[in-house]
Amino acid sequence: MTTRPIAAIILAAGKGTRMKSDLHKVLHPIAGRPMLLHLVASVGALAPDRIVAVVGAGREQVEAAVAPHGLSIAHQAEQLGTGHAVAQAQAALGGFSGDVLILYGDVPLVTAATMQRMIDRLHGDDAPASVVLGFRPADPGAYGRVIADAAGRIERMVEFKDASDAQRAVTLCNSGLMAVRSEDLFDLLARVGNDNAAGEYYLPDIVMLAAADGRASAVIETDAAEVAGVNSRGELAAVEADWQAKRRAAAMADGATLLAPGTVWFAHDTVIGRDVVIEPNVVFGPGVTIADRVTIHAFSHLEGATVAQGCSVGPFARLRPGTMLERGAKVGNFVEIKNAVLGDGAKASHLTYLGDADIGADANIGAGTITCNYDGFFKYRTKIGEGAFIGSNSALVAPVAIGDGAIVGAGSVVTADVDPGALALARARQEVRPGWAARFRALMQARKASK
Amino acid sequence: MTTRPIAAIILAAGKGTRMKSDLHKVLHPIAGRPMLLHLVASVGALAPDRIVAVVGAGREQVEAAVAPHGLSIAHQAEQLGTGHAVAQAQAALGGFSGDVLILYGDVPLVTAATMQRMIDRLHGDDAPASVVLGFRPADPGAYGRVIADAAGRIERMVEFKDASDAQRAVTLCNSGLMAVRSEDLFDLLARVGNDNAAGEYYLPDIVMLAAADGRASAVIETDAAEVAGVNSRGELAAVEADWQAKRRAAAMADGATLLAPGTVWFAHDTVIGRDVVIEPNVVFGPGVTIADRVTIHAFSHLEGATVAQGCSVGPFARLRPGTMLERGAKVGNFVEIKNAVLGDGAKASHLTYLGDADIGADANIGAGTITCNYDGFFKYRTKIGEGAFIGSNSALVAPVAIGDGAIVGAGSVVTADVDPGALALARARQEVRPGWAARFRALMQARKASK
Amino acid sequence: MTTRPIAAIILAAGKGTRMKSDLHKVLHPIAGRPMLLHLVASVGALAPDRIVAVVGAGREQVEAAVAPHGLSIAHQAEQLGTGHAVAQAQAALGGFSGDVLILYGDVPLVTAATMQRMIDRLHGDDAPASVVLGFRPADPGAYGRVIADAAGRIERMVEFKDASDAQRAVTLCNSGLMAVRSEDLFDLLARVGNDNAAGEYYLPDIVMLAAADGRASAVIETDAAEVAGVNSRGELAAVEADWQAKRRAAAMADGATLLAPGTVWFAHDTVIGRDVVIEPNVVFGPGVTIADRVTIHAFSHLEGATVAQGCSVGPFARLRPGTMLERGAKVGNFVEIKNAVLGDGAKASHLTYLGDADIGADANIGAGTITCNYDGFFKYRTKIGEGAFIGSNSALVAPVAIGDGAIVGAGSVVTADVDPGALALARARQEVRPGWAARFRALMQARKASK
Repeated sequence: MTTRPIAAIILAAGKGTRMKSDLHKVLHPIAGRPMLLHLVASVGALAPDRIVAVVGAGREQVEAAVAPHGLSIAHQAEQLGTGHAVAQAQAALGGFSGDVLILYGDVPLVTAATMQRMIDRLHGDDAPASVVLGFRPADPGAYGRVIADAAGRIERMVEFKDASDAQRAVTLCNSGLMAVRSEDLFDLLARVGNDNAAGEYYLPDIVMLAAADGRASAVIETDAAEVAGVNSRGELAAVEADWQAKRRAAAMADGATLLAPGTVWFAHDTVIGRDVVIEPNVVFGPGVTIADRVTIHAFSHLEGATVAQGCSVGPFARLRPGTMLERGAKVGNFVEIKNAVLGDGAKASHLTYLGDADIGADANIGAGTITCNYDGFFKYRTKIGEGAFIGSNSALVAPVAIGDGAIVGAGSVVTADVDPGALALARARQEVRPGWAARFRALMQARKASK
Repeated sequence: MTTRPIAAIILAAGKGTRMKSDLHKVLHPIAGRPMLLHLVASVGALAPDRIVAVVGAGREQVEAAVAPHGLSIAHQAEQLGTGHAVAQAQAALGGFSGDVLILYGDVPLVTAATMQRMIDRLHGDDAPASVVLGFRPADPGAYGRVIADAAGRIERMVEFKDASDAQRAVTLCNSGLMAVRSEDLFDLLARVGNDNAAGEYYLPDIVMLAAADGRASAVIETDAAEVAGVNSRGELAAVEADWQAKRRAAAMADGATLLAPGTVWFAHDTVIGRDVVIEPNVVFGPGVTIADRVTIHAFSHLEGATVAQGCSVGPFARLRPGTMLERGAKVGNFVEIKNAVLGDGAKASHLTYLGDADIGADANIGAGTITCNYDGFFKYRTKIGEGAFIGSNSALVAPVAIGDGAIVGAGSVVTADVDPGALALARARQEVRPGWAARFRALMQARKASK
Repeated sequence: MTTRPIAAIILAAGKGTRMKSDLHKVLHPIAGRPMLLHLVASVGALAPDRIVAVVGAGREQVEAAVAPHGLSIAHQAEQLGTGHAVAQAQAALGGFSGDVLILYGDVPLVTAATMQRMIDRLHGDDAPASVVLGFRPADPGAYGRVIADAAGRIERMVEFKDASDAQRAVTLCNSGLMAVRSEDLFDLLARVGNDNAAGEYYLPDIVMLAAADGRASAVIETDAAEVAGVNSRGELAAVEADWQAKRRAAAMADGATLLAPGTVWFAHDTVIGRDVVIEPNVVFGPGVTIADRVTIHAFSHLEGATVAQGCSVGPFARLRPGTMLERGAKVGNFVEIKNAVLGDGAKASHLTYLGDADIGADANIGAGTITCNYDGFFKYRTKIGEGAFIGSNSALVAPVAIGDGAIVGAGSVVTADVDPGALALARARQEVRPGWAARFRALMQARKASK
């Protein structure tokens, strides 16, 4: 097999009108990551020399999104067809010499393995002029057909509208994805004409042009789901659903229990350990790593969080970016954690907000505790020592430190540091007015009656 | 086409035994609205002169529910068949002259377009004596069959139990819905007999009676889903699911992203803008309007709320009736808003209850803030000025006003108005008892050990 | 029909490698109950004399789990096939004489009715030597086939790999479950050999051995879903989904409305009354009983809770073990109740934690109320009298009692008992510093600008 350099051209110039969105179509996310970046990640596994995205309208949005990923952007000012779009990438490819993959920003879930198969086929038997990725959809409908022999040698590429009945009966369809040598690609493209109803330059025409030169192309097949395209929000949801179904199956195969797999939503980079139990209705945003033997109870929402072995999260917990739960920590219901560390065995069981905080091992954070981490201008940190006990309904006004083993009395507003082993109280003495409630009630009932 | 007056008769006298409910069957809701009122809304698009609901048991419940909608109620004391039920509406229709639609309270999702097609057909080719709405279910089972020619001219209406094998092989079934001229309807009904096993008067018999007079009826077809009936809670759930699936598809087609469409539950009147993103597990009760570019995060519950452009809601947010979020406002996790306005850019990010409140633009409501709006007898309003900052864990005892730009210190109980630009504090000074926690811990450990 | 004693042997010695779990396969739960205990409950309906579980690895885990259920454990040290496994139970059965059911710990949802049918068949026509439970899966795949005549008399049991094409075309498959008389079982097993590729002793061989003695066995059939086995987390989820679908249908048939049935998760012992409405996304853990006319709003999580007529729960409510809601009580959003009683008509509507508490009838618990029930060592009880009114954001430090009709002012920390009809206040007086906020803001803006 070859080890020639690889480049990818990702076509992303479509208007995406049916999305009815101000966001560029290829930036709509699947599993929390823009479609275009799914492709960048997949092709990245082939270590390409360069990746060029061909963009029309909305170029600035795409440029901003891909900036950290080292892509080049080529601009297709007019929408003159896929052949024309690929041709726009030539300058951005510079003097690149090697194999070129042609991908589509709105066909986001093609795997690295399939891309590698395309490259391998290009250098396999008969060294075809190009490789076309074909698929057999449940309903071939109006897809272009690939007419090929049993060995995958392409006899003809035909648009549906130009196809004979016999050709329409062929179930092998053209996904549009191709692999072509750089030394062939732009020469062939230069010969593609636009003598058709739409006046467009069609990429598949290069197959027939090479055939006219006596060089056949080859088709390889993949699952229809892998080349599903996204032209509407409905198709976006369908591709998301397919991605999620596969990810859930993988999580279960790896030893996690999903009580209701269809109600668990993963992000593209979620990491789940063994003997993790995930109850119904859990949403993972990006950046979550869950170690072994963790239980994520129902109705939990995690994002940017690292959860160590044996922790318990939820139900009704929200872990926001920067959360780190160390071994055996517990976050209970109606608790939000942000940019905070809970030490081994620490607990925040109810109705609490811990933001910008370091909580020591085995500390107990009472119900209704709030870290006051923001003064409207700056954020400040709260430190709670090992084994400290924060009484319920306390407010900890940061910056503030509670020492190891200290106790904060319920209902306190703590504004100054508390030494290890000390008790802090900041609450008023209880006064009682005997009979007041009974008199108030009588008065109000009378007032209500008079209304 | 005709412009004759239209009346609708909605049959709602069935006992609904299989619902096992004290609530009248036709009052069970689909998408947050009683089934009967779905029909009233649909037929309302045809601007009918009058609508008569024929009710048997549970008449009072139905009367109370339809009172605001201008329906007449006719009473069917005995359950003597559909023909008898329709006849009970004659008095309530008074001298009405025009076209009569016969609908069923437990067949709730028939569209105005289909009703209009029925009326149009009544005045179309051959001016049929009546129009029957037919459908072709996946399994025709025991439905009555409509035997008609290719042009839809009805040759015979036949109950399944009376049908020959050839008739049973017909897949066109009778939904029961009809359109008939008022001048024909009651005359024909008067001639319907009850010489059958059940001793009932069957409405479809009017088709054959008119045919005997030399006047054919016509059948038009619609989707089986549109005429799905509800006789059990399982069928109620199935009709709800069908309604939701269509509504979700419409929301996506209109430019909203539903990350997990199957987990979003709309109400009958939900309004969703463009580039709205709805994360998994969102429930809309009635009365919600969402403007463009709003994100509704996972696990949110909205009812009677208006959300302006660019707002962010949830996760774990509850918006109750009377909530108005102005541009760019943010409601975060474990926050409940009721009968309150959040001004442009105002934020209530965590663990807060804002009830009966007016929050100025750019105000920041700290975590754990509670408006104390109720004294057990009356409700009072809280006003918070523009740019005010309410420290965490504060209680605002209404009626109370916090001025523009004022600050309330964390943990305060505010009982009196605060001037603009002032600081209010209502909390105790912090006291510390050194070593107390360590001594307490030692004591309790000893006590625990001795147990 | 017979009334001979019954014993059950449950095979549970499989390694469960594909589960990738430290938890024994048969202890993975379905509907909140370990698989093995589903079988124990089902066979329990036949009042068996004894139940023996045959366990290999992980014996201690299984013994601990079944300890309260009166099972005997037999140990299969080596995995030498199903025949060998059953033989290991002989000692634990002692001198048992009667009918033996052979079940599988990873085939958990076989019903008592099917088990009874197996026993009845054993004593029915022709008194077969054994009864095999067969099923017809959608894809018979590699299951062993049962070759039987129209009357269910078994001609041959054949492993898929040994089957002829004609035998593979048979769709009746062997579930592995059997009923055999104790006087036959162990004699036949003693004659089973291991002369096969795997060198294992196969239980189905006893059918052919009995046939060689001139005694035919019989097959009876059941649904494929009932004998679905669990060898992976994916299959565990599939069996759970099947169980849930049936339970939801039953709840609806019994008169509960499930707005979105697929989003409601029941436990094995959930009890639901009539005219109960369950909104989308509700999770029932074990031990919940819901009386008539209760509404469970969306996003609620209940476990070990008893809810009386007319209560309203959620949205976003969590009821933990020991919760008892009396008639018409209301638990609202972001409220957690644990080991507490809410009297008739009592309300806790928002952001509250009530643990270890007795709340009197018609008491009103304000938003943000916390019972401080734990001092880090012991738990204490809070008592709130009838008609008491707890102001918002209060902390009640247990042990403490609030008398009937008493009022606690908002934001109070109550540490001492409050008499009936009294008002308790424990909060600081409000101080205001005019202009302070404006100066602070100016200062901070300057500081922020200088950064």
